[in-house]
Amino acid sequence: MSPSIIPVELFDLVVFGGTGDLAKRKLLPALYHRDCDDQIPDESRIIAISRSELDKDTYANLVRDALQEHVSEELIDDSVLDRFLGRLDYVSLDAKADAGWSELGTRLGGHDDRVRVFYLATAPGLFGEVCRKINENRLNTPKSRVVLEKPIGRDLASAKQINDAVGKVFAEDQTYRIDHYLGKETVQNLMVLRFANTLFEPLWNATAIDHVQITVAEAIGVEGRGGYYDRSGALRDMVQNHLLQLLCLVAMEPPTSLTADAVRDEKLKVLRALKPITGSDVSKKTVRGQYKAGASNGAAVPGYIDELGSDFESRTETFVAMKAEIENWRWAGVPFYLRTGKRLATRTSEIVVHFKSIPHSIFPVGADDVTENRLVVRLQPDEGMELSLMVKDPGPGGMRLRPASLNLSFAETFKVRYRDAYERLLMDVVRGNPTLFMRRDEVEAAWTWIEPVINAWQEQREPPKPYTASSWGPSAAIALIERDGRTWYEV
Amino acid sequence: MSPSIIPVELFDLVVFGGTGDLAKRKLLPALYHRDCDDQIPDESRIIAISRSELDKDTYANLVRDALQEHVSEELIDDSVLDRFLGRLDYVSLDAKADAGWSELGTRLGGHDDRVRVFYLATAPGLFGEVCRKINENRLNTPKSRVVLEKPIGRDLASAKQINDAVGKVFAEDQTYRIDHYLGKETVQNLMVLRFANTLFEPLWNATAIDHVQITVAEAIGVEGRGGYYDRSGALRDMVQNHLLQLLCLVAMEPPTSLTADAVRDEKLKVLRALKPITGSDVSKKTVRGQYKAGASNGAAVPGYIDELGSDFESRTETFVAMKAEIENWRWAGVPFYLRTGKRLATRTSEIVVHFKSIPHSIFPVGADDVTENRLVVRLQPDEGMELSLMVKDPGPGGMRLRPASLNLSFAETFKVRYRDAYERLLMDVVRGNPTLFMRRDEVEAAWTWIEPVINAWQEQREPPKPYTASSWGPSAAIALIERDGRTWYEV
Repeated sequence: MSPSIIPVELFDLVVFGGTGDLAKRKLLPALYHRDCDDQIPDESRIIAISRSELDKDTYANLVRDALQEHVSEELIDDSVLDRFLGRLDYVSLDAKADAGWSELGTRLGGHDDRVRVFYLATAPGLFGEVCRKINENRLNTPKSRVVLEKPIGRDLASAKQINDAVGKVFAEDQTYRIDHYLGKETVQNLMVLRFANTLFEPLWNATAIDHVQITVAEAIGVEGRGGYYDRSGALRDMVQNHLLQLLCLVAMEPPTSLTADAVRDEKLKVLRALKPITGSDVSKKTVRGQYKAGASNGAAVPGYIDELGSDFESRTETFVAMKAEIENWRWAGVPFYLRTGKRLATRTSEIVVHFKSIPHSIFPVGADDVTENRLVVRLQPDEGMELSLMVKDPGPGGMRLRPASLNLSFAETFKVRYRDAYERLLMDVVRGNPTLFMRRDEVEAAWTWIEPVINAWQEQREPPKPYTASSWGPSAAIALIERDGRTWYEV
Repeated sequence: MSPSIIPVELFDLVVFGGTGDLAKRKLLPALYHRDCDDQIPDESRIIAISRSELDKDTYANLVRDALQEHVSEELIDDSVLDRFLGRLDYVSLDAKADAGWSELGTRLGGHDDRVRVFYLATAPGLFGEVCRKINENRLNTPKSRVVLEKPIGRDLASAKQINDAVGKVFAEDQTYRIDHYLGKETVQNLMVLRFANTLFEPLWNATAIDHVQITVAEAIGVEGRGGYYDRSGALRDMVQNHLLQLLCLVAMEPPTSLTADAVRDEKLKVLRALKPITGSDVSKKTVRGQYKAGASNGAAVPGYIDELGSDFESRTETFVAMKAEIENWRWAGVPFYLRTGKRLATRTSEIVVHFKSIPHSIFPVGADDVTENRLVVRLQPDEGMELSLMVKDPGPGGMRLRPASLNLSFAETFKVRYRDAYERLLMDVVRGNPTLFMRRDEVEAAWTWIEPVINAWQEQREPPKPYTASSWGPSAAIALIERDGRTWYEV
């Protein structure tokens, strides 16, 4: 056990959607890793919920298989694995029906003194109903918390409806809206970079920064999630939460502290300062696309429609590019270009802060020919930071310039296993620290900005622009930024 | 031949002090390297001058030995070596007497159309006389240049005297006062760093920078140079030229261009803005030291007095530490701590720009506990830059901070042989580019600032403070900076 790891308070975690993909791929491996580090108290239990009629042992076997699939082999420790599987319990329950709830109450009973976490890894349409049942069955204790997975709704009205329904049962400070991007090391490092260094903050504004790019690119298609995805699309699935949250962390004013409300107040101010995209601006400042068949790693891959297996056309976007503007003193005139999509050229998530060009060149090249400084914060695949500078080309050939990079690869620098975002966030829930979770007003402010775009797209006659799988999206996305005399950063 | 290397104009180079240490260790190896790169025109000649009665072949053999000693073996190319030795000529001449001058005239005769460089690698006391003789013998052609090695004088009056004597023969634009520190890649990179990047210039002032440290530390003692050194000392030998030149490049305003006068005007402004150190400030803001016996790399080494082999005491300082202040808007309140010495703990030359601490900490530590940002420009032993930042300590333990470094090692990054400063500077002389040479007014302004310190030291009763060989100088040097709540940067 690392001396820096302090066990959290005794807790019971109830996972709705306990046999689902998120539980198997993320939640249970994250909890297993925390158990390896002895962070989970001995008596803590994980109670999985789903409709399937399983017994506890069958569920434990299912989890054993999931861990063997999703945890690297060298991190499987048989004694920890046995301990971890021993924490598991299972209750079969249909959120919409009454059956099973009293059984859940029995299992939880007598442990009201523990932290109790309800993790809702279900479709958001069930959030309200699950909370209502939790209340009806008097399972909400003073030490209870509820974790809501994205998406919180599909527009402002449905988000409000969900928040209202959940809010009838859980107070806002019991409610943890998770965005796992906020649990990533580099995302937190962005806050450290900005606020634990004097180097960047004086430059962090419209005087020194030309524009910001935020790219979250996936190489995969919709795969098995087509049903959900087709009702959502890239704007709702990615921009409304992950990309806007990253934008907030780049753009927010320094909070007075790291307390949840101080940070979230600042993020909220950014969201509310986003210039609305309405009317003819929608086609000027947004691009939506949908991938067509192409090739990935030398193998043919189907287009979105084929992958859906659907017989009819879908107008759901699998790609979005947007030009966002923040109407405040710090950022006036500094566009934030956002893009995200499936079946793009590579899997990468990064924030690129692109500084202005030098005002005057004293060198044998013009100021325009001197490459601008760039700070790249890479979230995946390899977390790291890179600062691009101009340096002198060595040698006797006079003052020739060339770009060079100062690099900080976190994995190389720190030689530690990188904790998955869920590991941190789950422990934050147990600790009662909501700093890295979204507050109700943030989610609703994000929807307020997104909704006019959704509506305008619906009213448009034309379908999303096609793009070939493994490209960087439709050419209109290139045009969106090139029109402004700028270029997407692609390594 | 590298495509980037353009041969310079046809030249004859006359080296006074042609059998001396500087010629053998630096000038001839530098010229040989330029010959390897085909930068030296076929007919160009190197005419060595000294008092010794040598013939051309003996001198060529002496140079062959010197190159074999001072050039890495893998860079010795026999055909280039033969070509290079074929350029050599030798004239025996006593600068103070008439003999030999007409012979030099004969050798140079008929080549008045060539660039002609007189390199005065002699004691500065001879500069005036050599120039007078050059004039008397009508060797100064319109395309002639004279290169003066440091030190230009030992105080303001003698510097003026030398400059006057040289100025009677050579116009200021024919006069190249060399400071080889200015020919180092990293020193030029400092200009590129500042003026080809937007990242640093907005921070490069009293608002963001707390203080600057300039250290030029030698591990060796005075060795064979004791005679010269004892009449000079560290203040004259190092601070008046190298350290103040580095200070100028850090502190100067952006020049409008890289032309010699634009850059030198800005450096001059810095020198003239240095706050005079006089009266009681001398003991508050300067520390001088002299090394005593100690050990270096496990072997006993003698003290300065023993190394001199002198029978009587010497009060010459082998170490200086100073607190320099620049009285202008950019730098008011930002001290520049300078230190240099012989027999210090390690051989290192570096500029450390130490940024202010963050104004407010949002993290679980106080603002004072957050390590300040630091930019280290390393001139030797390995040229490079290092930017120290605070980053998040990875892991689930909350927002813990730790320092990390973004590094740019030039040798690693560029994988090229590093040109010695003399290679560049000699070619600059032939090209007629004096940007990296000191103008008369700069040298005199530096003496104007240094002289009151020299005088005050002479008037002081107490000798230099002793320090043990291989230490970081006398404890008073530590106190000088610690009194201000700061600390010397030592890796």
